[in-house]
Amino acid sequence: MSEKVPSYEGVVAAAARLSGIVAETPLLPFEHRGRLHWLKAESLQRGGAFKYRGAYNRLAQIAPENRPAGVVAFSSGNHAQGVARAAKLLGMPAAIVMPADAPAVKVAGTRALGAEVIPYDRHTESREQIAARIAAERGAVLVPSFDDVDVVEGQGTTGLDILRQLGRVPGRVVVPCGGGGLSAGIALALPESAIVIAEPEGWDDMGRSLAGGAIVEVPADAPFTACDALQTKRVADMTFGALKAAGATGVAVSEAEHRAAMRFAYDLGLVVEPGGAVALAALLAGKLPDDDAETVVVCSGSNVDPAQFAAVLTERV
Amino acid sequence: MSEKVPSYEGVVAAAARLSGIVAETPLLPFEHRGRLHWLKAESLQRGGAFKYRGAYNRLAQIAPENRPAGVVAFSSGNHAQGVARAAKLLGMPAAIVMPADAPAVKVAGTRALGAEVIPYDRHTESREQIAARIAAERGAVLVPSFDDVDVVEGQGTTGLDILRQLGRVPGRVVVPCGGGGLSAGIALALPESAIVIAEPEGWDDMGRSLAGGAIVEVPADAPFTACDALQTKRVADMTFGALKAAGATGVAVSEAEHRAAMRFAYDLGLVVEPGGAVALAALLAGKLPDDDAETVVVCSGSNVDPAQFAAVLTERV
Repeated sequence: MSEKVPSYEGVVAAAARLSGIVAETPLLPFEHRGRLHWLKAESLQRGGAFKYRGAYNRLAQIAPENRPAGVVAFSSGNHAQGVARAAKLLGMPAAIVMPADAPAVKVAGTRALGAEVIPYDRHTESREQIAARIAAERGAVLVPSFDDVDVVEGQGTTGLDILRQLGRVPGRVVVPCGGGGLSAGIALALPESAIVIAEPEGWDDMGRSLAGGAIVEVPADAPFTACDALQTKRVADMTFGALKAAGATGVAVSEAEHRAAMRFAYDLGLVVEPGGAVALAALLAGKLPDDDAETVVVCSGSNVDPAQFAAVLTERV
Repeated sequence: MSEKVPSYEGVVAAAARLSGIVAETPLLPFEHRGRLHWLKAESLQRGGAFKYRGAYNRLAQIAPENRPAGVVAFSSGNHAQGVARAAKLLGMPAAIVMPADAPAVKVAGTRALGAEVIPYDRHTESREQIAARIAAERGAVLVPSFDDVDVVEGQGTTGLDILRQLGRVPGRVVVPCGGGGLSAGIALALPESAIVIAEPEGWDDMGRSLAGGAIVEVPADAPFTACDALQTKRVADMTFGALKAAGATGVAVSEAEHRAAMRFAYDLGLVVEPGGAVALAALLAGKLPDDDAETVVVCSGSNVDPAQFAAVLTERV
């Protein structure tokens, strides 16, 4: 493992690299129980998720002579689309290992960007092994979805956006957490803000790791969650380390709570996917400490199959 | 009628008045048939539509001594919410005359802002007469939804946003049109851009008025449209005059075309209501001149009942 760790300076350098490449997603005010909060709608990023930031920051630093062999990634969908989009822009071939049961909208989006999609069985096969084999065969660069300095620093540019758009340091930023790339990056970008990571109940391994001081994995008997983007079994030393150093804490939300958050976001005009809505859910469900911290919640993705979104909208509650 | 007409200078003054009050809605890039376009997501404005701009610009200019008597407006929903929100912020009572069959989400949104909702029958009663009577009884100020200098100038600040966010003058701006307040305001704000207004088929009275050089009304036997926000029977001399002077042209889109545009916006992460999607629909349906103009489409509102949105999403096409 490289000695290099992600840093604030790295996030700043990434922001310069991404300028004019990524969309400036809005920081929208919203009210809840009489108080004003802010929603960073990173769900409106190109490709429908923050992942394009990290992917582009990584791929743009691949030396020109290594670009023809292309890149390989594994992802349930959003990282796939981020890598595919960055590869297309940089003229590189991309192969993406995706679960056979990934949301159709994410598979279609990845293919539409010209990437080769390689399906695998989530229950019996190892995506890491498949991706590593393809990378070895082709001489392609493997692009991890979160365990990578350039990826974490790229995602962290979301935090610099928040600072610039708000015009001051937010007291608290609440961020959906799968592998921790986005939350670790934001923690580096906003060292003076309290960082709270949000996860689905039963998949709250980062929160429990932070509470216990050492990485714990998601148990094999974890319950079902519709948050396909947050089904990471184990976080990385890198992301855990950055969040631990920042004093981050975690909260877990139920399936009903993330669905309620999706409906709340709908009322604001936003499509947010299940995993993208867990930070907003934590706020709406009253799971954050009730202090005076000015709070920004990040909605991290919008890629949800229309039928699933329609079912959430019309659910009787 | 006052001699005052809306002007570029008035739009600039409105922008100063609205600074810090309205949300900065994003200008998002999107691709269609291999070309890059821009979407001004005014659907993310506070209250879910551009209407807050014009309403606040109007109400903020009511003299303090006249504020206690409040304001009256009539609206199918978005103007209602804009006026209610501005009145709440300025501490003024608001009464809104709304069709009994207005979307429930718009009625509820208006009431939630503390406004008094006065329902009327769209088919048998005159909302203008009802509103005028209430204004007379209470000494309240009647706030028209588009036939008003301050309202048009407030809506026009959307155009200044586009200019600043794009960093250059767009070649073409396509705008949904009901009474023409938004499109007339944008035409004033962006005098060097080609302005195209979009309307539902059969309700394309502004387009036909511009083509013929004089105002024509929507015929009594106009077909059904789901675009509740664009069901204005007659535009105003003021809005028609500004658009005519700008050399604006019109296009009409079908119901299927605006529904397809709603699904396209969904894929970008945006909830857009039927009437808010007609400009995007015009682009997607190939109804704009095929030239090299850099094109911005305005999506003007997001207030659509969840069941209706779900039905559009799951429609088999």
